[in-house]
Amino acid sequence: MISVEEARARILAALTATPSETVPLPAGWGRVLALPILARLTQPPADVSAMDGYAVRAADVTEGARLAVIGTAPAGHPFAGEVGAGQAVRIFTGGIVPFGADAILLQEDAEATASTVLVKEAARPGRWIRRRGLDFAEGEEVLSAGRRLTARDIGLAAAANTPWLAVHRAPRIGILATGDEIALPGDPIPRGGIVSSNAHALAALVRAGGGDPLILPIAPDDSQAIAEAARAARACDMLVTTGGASVGDHDLVQSALGPEGFALDFWKIAMRPGKPLIWGRLGATPVLGLPGNPVSALVCSVLFLIPALDRLSGLPGAPPRTIRALAGADLPENDRRFDHLRATLQPGPEGIPLAIPFPLQDSSMMKTLARAEALILRAPGAPALQTGAPVEVIPLGDLGL
Amino acid sequence: MISVEEARARILAALTATPSETVPLPAGWGRVLALPILARLTQPPADVSAMDGYAVRAADVTEGARLAVIGTAPAGHPFAGEVGAGQAVRIFTGGIVPFGADAILLQEDAEATASTVLVKEAARPGRWIRRRGLDFAEGEEVLSAGRRLTARDIGLAAAANTPWLAVHRAPRIGILATGDEIALPGDPIPRGGIVSSNAHALAALVRAGGGDPLILPIAPDDSQAIAEAARAARACDMLVTTGGASVGDHDLVQSALGPEGFALDFWKIAMRPGKPLIWGRLGATPVLGLPGNPVSALVCSVLFLIPALDRLSGLPGAPPRTIRALAGADLPENDRRFDHLRATLQPGPEGIPLAIPFPLQDSSMMKTLARAEALILRAPGAPALQTGAPVEVIPLGDLGL
Repeated sequence: MISVEEARARILAALTATPSETVPLPAGWGRVLALPILARLTQPPADVSAMDGYAVRAADVTEGARLAVIGTAPAGHPFAGEVGAGQAVRIFTGGIVPFGADAILLQEDAEATASTVLVKEAARPGRWIRRRGLDFAEGEEVLSAGRRLTARDIGLAAAANTPWLAVHRAPRIGILATGDEIALPGDPIPRGGIVSSNAHALAALVRAGGGDPLILPIAPDDSQAIAEAARAARACDMLVTTGGASVGDHDLVQSALGPEGFALDFWKIAMRPGKPLIWGRLGATPVLGLPGNPVSALVCSVLFLIPALDRLSGLPGAPPRTIRALAGADLPENDRRFDHLRATLQPGPEGIPLAIPFPLQDSSMMKTLARAEALILRAPGAPALQTGAPVEVIPLGDLGL
Repeated sequence: MISVEEARARILAALTATPSETVPLPAGWGRVLALPILARLTQPPADVSAMDGYAVRAADVTEGARLAVIGTAPAGHPFAGEVGAGQAVRIFTGGIVPFGADAILLQEDAEATASTVLVKEAARPGRWIRRRGLDFAEGEEVLSAGRRLTARDIGLAAAANTPWLAVHRAPRIGILATGDEIALPGDPIPRGGIVSSNAHALAALVRAGGGDPLILPIAPDDSQAIAEAARAARACDMLVTTGGASVGDHDLVQSALGPEGFALDFWKIAMRPGKPLIWGRLGATPVLGLPGNPVSALVCSVLFLIPALDRLSGLPGAPPRTIRALAGADLPENDRRFDHLRATLQPGPEGIPLAIPFPLQDSSMMKTLARAEALILRAPGAPALQTGAPVEVIPLGDLGL
């Protein structure tokens, strides 16, 4: 058995980012930049007004002065002339400051007539003017390669005049559920069997992690069927199997994939839930073999599949984000397996949440898993803790998981 | 001018959830349930083994005893007979416990020969057996209406044998950027003009909030063009305009929409950035008029558009989540407008992040906005704070914004 940290490190070390593709700007949201974005223009392209008012020469603008309004400069329609002594140009937010003007008289500080404006408050030179290039200059790198694009980044890329982006391809993840006992929802259920939940939960999780899931037909517990389905996944950036990873007689994934050229790296991790986890390679395709039971499969996904998706997507890949919480119940001493207790979060003292573990942590309970808001981390050999002691938790809510 | 809270309350009060549609299970991720999901089966359907081992009668299983193995019960293949005294059935995780057996002898506590098994450690009655219905019972509500579905929920719905879901339709949001001065990225830029960034940033943000964006053609500053574009948006669940909302002579949105049947609710909020914000209704379509400058537009979106999307999607809609942080710089006393300072987050003492405001908070700076990791909240009249004082911030990172 290897540790959670070592397992994640080995998985990440074996993966590289997908090649890049060219997408139109609106398709870039959530994708990882493969090339930096350099601004194709200077923003603002000239000195512009930050407010609605009058472009003026500050020296003229004393309280009580009256200026002649000689034109207008709305955004997009620059004034072609020059502002001379005693003159003003009506200007609007984003309008280019005309030649000769060095300040903006706010409209609330002015009283307009048909062709003049009365100054009610003096203006300072440079005030309310946004200088050329205040935001960015042409040629400047505004977004770096390796960044997952937010909505704000899409806005910045647009402002920098970039209609196309080079982003890493969304990793295509083959998902293979195995087992004689499983049926698709709505299909007839074999006697003693259960409905397949892993494949669709994992597909949603892959989507939440920015990947592109490909659900392969359910493979019965039969070497040939598994091998055939696995061949279909060779076009994927990673194959995720579920079930068939434990030590029982019916653990066929390993034996089935062997003749197909499967090279095992490791298959046991010192953790709970989820000890049996296969990691290896089928030809060129990395294979992550998750445990068959849904809770173990999901916890392993949070710890290993999401970081793997990040790495394939062009990010470094990192352990899941943790936050500080307080134990909402007494916790027993832990054994040598890293434990992940399903818990709800409640507001606690001083803004630190209370993480309340479910009394029954059985790894078959989907309902408990769905209700959980966090996983309480219990390191190997962690001492017993009393209610209220600080603990580290992985919050599950924000990830769409 | 009205407060941020009142503005949000008025916006939410005017919106209702979209009607429901029927989608296949895999399309349900991220959508909000319109009807609860009731389990269509009991899970597990019978008492099953939680481990690989032997189904036995606990009374027989004392250290050193030898049992006759009379059959196997893998998951999906129940053993049809009965376990009698001195007998055992080989069983695997998920396999149905055969009639007569009341305990599981773990395989690591047993030594198998061809047809018998030697007990190395006693077994307790009921141990390692998952009782029928441990997870959920047929007819039980496993997921409630009004819940946004996570990957785990999709797994639970699948396990409950639900191939179809009733979810609220993704809200369709029309996005209308106005202004003579704006061009699409890559298109020729008019003299003095800028590239449109709001429409695509907002489209990404709508997607991040679970909506379906419809970007309308850019409308020049001309009443007729704006009115025409607005008519095209009547099929939308909400129309979002950007630009043309402030008090200048070129603020046409209000005057253009008036003859089309626009009913204004309010148009000024005591906040910064983003004072001018139109809220009203164009016939049956709610209209949110965002400020033209990209930073104001995005901050207003976090405060109002995302909650509005939540409400349209079937959730109650709530203020954005805030976390506690420490001021990373001295903050001046605030005036009567609610201020939102763009800031980065750094690890701080005792796990509380340090929120460091950008020195220049100009609302035209897209680069600063894209780099920001949080908005520091400064309520109207908030007193000056020294570096290290506690502040409330809206974290931006987790939302894909």
